[in-house]
Amino acid sequence: MTTASVNPPPRLLMGPGPITADPRVLRAMSAQLVGQYDPAMTSYMNETMELYRHVFRTSNEQTLLVDGTSRAGIEAALVSLLEPGDRVLVPVFGRFGHLLAEIGERCGAEVHTIETPWGTVFTPEQVEEAVLAVRPKVLAVVHGDTATTMCQPLDDLGEICRRHDVLLYCDATATLGGNRFETDGWDVDVASAGLQKCLGGPSGSAPITIGSRAVRVIEGRRHVEAGIAESGDVGRGVRIASNYLDLAQIIDYWGPRRLNHHTEATTMLYGARECARLLVDEGVDVAVERHRLHGAAMLAGVQGLGLQVFGDVAHKMHNVVAVHIPDGVDGDRTRAGLLTDFGIEIGTSFGPLHGKVWRIGTMGHNARKDAVLVTLAALEQVLRAAGVPVTAGAGVGAAQEVYA
Amino acid sequence: MTTASVNPPPRLLMGPGPITADPRVLRAMSAQLVGQYDPAMTSYMNETMELYRHVFRTSNEQTLLVDGTSRAGIEAALVSLLEPGDRVLVPVFGRFGHLLAEIGERCGAEVHTIETPWGTVFTPEQVEEAVLAVRPKVLAVVHGDTATTMCQPLDDLGEICRRHDVLLYCDATATLGGNRFETDGWDVDVASAGLQKCLGGPSGSAPITIGSRAVRVIEGRRHVEAGIAESGDVGRGVRIASNYLDLAQIIDYWGPRRLNHHTEATTMLYGARECARLLVDEGVDVAVERHRLHGAAMLAGVQGLGLQVFGDVAHKMHNVVAVHIPDGVDGDRTRAGLLTDFGIEIGTSFGPLHGKVWRIGTMGHNARKDAVLVTLAALEQVLRAAGVPVTAGAGVGAAQEVYA
Repeated sequence: MTTASVNPPPRLLMGPGPITADPRVLRAMSAQLVGQYDPAMTSYMNETMELYRHVFRTSNEQTLLVDGTSRAGIEAALVSLLEPGDRVLVPVFGRFGHLLAEIGERCGAEVHTIETPWGTVFTPEQVEEAVLAVRPKVLAVVHGDTATTMCQPLDDLGEICRRHDVLLYCDATATLGGNRFETDGWDVDVASAGLQKCLGGPSGSAPITIGSRAVRVIEGRRHVEAGIAESGDVGRGVRIASNYLDLAQIIDYWGPRRLNHHTEATTMLYGARECARLLVDEGVDVAVERHRLHGAAMLAGVQGLGLQVFGDVAHKMHNVVAVHIPDGVDGDRTRAGLLTDFGIEIGTSFGPLHGKVWRIGTMGHNARKDAVLVTLAALEQVLRAAGVPVTAGAGVGAAQEVYA
Repeated sequence: MTTASVNPPPRLLMGPGPITADPRVLRAMSAQLVGQYDPAMTSYMNETMELYRHVFRTSNEQTLLVDGTSRAGIEAALVSLLEPGDRVLVPVFGRFGHLLAEIGERCGAEVHTIETPWGTVFTPEQVEEAVLAVRPKVLAVVHGDTATTMCQPLDDLGEICRRHDVLLYCDATATLGGNRFETDGWDVDVASAGLQKCLGGPSGSAPITIGSRAVRVIEGRRHVEAGIAESGDVGRGVRIASNYLDLAQIIDYWGPRRLNHHTEATTMLYGARECARLLVDEGVDVAVERHRLHGAAMLAGVQGLGLQVFGDVAHKMHNVVAVHIPDGVDGDRTRAGLLTDFGIEIGTSFGPLHGKVWRIGTMGHNARKDAVLVTLAALEQVLRAAGVPVTAGAGVGAAQEVYA
């Protein structure tokens, strides 16, 4: 067979992620490899840990990368914390809450969920009530669920968890870097993310931070890998059911012992490091404010186009907005028109929202004025083509007012 | 903190992998992203499947990528095939056999091993005898174990497995693309690999091929993910203990249903696709012969330098050779000299060989005459500096005779 090298069509990815990568991240990823234990590699790994401590706002020593997509980071956290029979509580407010529950089940945990309608979030009181009823080992909660665009406030959950001796795991995939996230300030025990949202990189690396309470649980389940046994430390807990996602071994690989585990995905590490480097260089607070601004402009713009926004706007993530597809409009056909005629991608939806809303992102490299305005201009055209009456310039104009 | 962008020192990676990536692969990886369901992405995924069918020498429809390092591919295969209590037989002839056994244990399988001294391989009779004694569901075997450099002949194992109704899984990480590997010709049910050896790419993507007998087992364990339930198909088997490495879900993601699972690691996919594309363009047989040639030259070269080769040379992989560290030589110090003075990395060793042998690779982009000769020239210098009497030009000369 004859196949050409990749030559992707130019796209502006304004969906809920993945988004267009920052060219600087792709450039860093084109650097040549060094060996796993090269002094340069060791420095890159240590710098990556330190950079992500800034991004996660933590002093956690164990701040590192899981080699896989954001889902690998989630599963690494849960499979390393949860032993079969352990209780885990998952507040579900969108698709990714279901995912946490499902992974918990696969770990053999006793999974308890509470649910709130899509488009809403939980109050701290609702969560505490469930914690008291379930008495879980772990509270596993999504910070921002792109399925609904909602951002669950976490400010009080860490304190509730400490008070009741519960570990708090947060999936920050969709929010980190574009919304305030305070690992230490909120007493989050473990948080994980991915590069393909506000961090401006490609999917394939999962930054994770693990606090000391969680490290103790994980290290209690350590069993040394056969064939490289240098030490006999075997924990008291049930052995972690995964080798690849065993955080105890991954900690040993990133730590001063540098015990061989997987072969680090060097190119993804270069990318993850660059994502964090650019964010820290910009200032994490500045980047969050940038996401707030462009998210607000997009929100005003879609409202200006006459589109109705889904969900509780007061609890929306900065970086994604869901809008109801107007009556009589074929959502997928309109999205296809945006893609083929304008090179712009916006998102479809899952589950109960399937076919009902579009999801439009403003994150990472694409949290920019030109990306917002061009998307609104193109959206105006495809809406009009679909028979929706739209005042010329209404979307762009409303966004410009936010920028003014 | 202020950190500069990555700027790795120039290295020639002549260890057992990772190796210097083909610059064309890194270039392909610098291409901009497209969305997960973009028509361009769907084409790239389908082309990647077809390219790896050529690389694995198979007509298996289910030939795809697991988003993680080669170890993720191994675990995906084993966790998707093995239910708790299932028997798995692992012939162990090096470190990676221990890894397969360990992963099998973590899956809750009843793991049986047979062992042969490091530096040797098994006869088909030894394997069949063990199959008859254990009656496993799965025979899990490493093709080439870089820990010992040995390549286990697989020609007869598939036939043995078919005769006794056993599934054959092969870890082809270290061999694929540089040594003959015949998925269909050898009746291999599942094989997985990585990019960082003979395929000439960076670690972080695990090509895998799954034959129809294995697909039936895996699909019998399918449970539909909550939150995207479009279909009610639930298999009869025990649910796969991992979500991230659940091959039933990954098959649905790569297949015509395109059911959302993880967010594909697009950049790694670009890289994996380019690795296979270059290999298929060269010709898989031609690439194997190239690895044979440069491996033979390196073998002759190290023997010319007076170094004693470890293990059964008749069963050595083409792409790596292990040599005994001469008496009185500090192995790590000599390796460090090679790295810092010449920019060349060779490998240390694990387990029983730790501190006793060096491992030298000639694979992927570095299976080239200049890489072989410059490594031998530098090795001559550091051996002499370590007090080993070496005839000037002996290594390079012996290699040149192979090339003549």
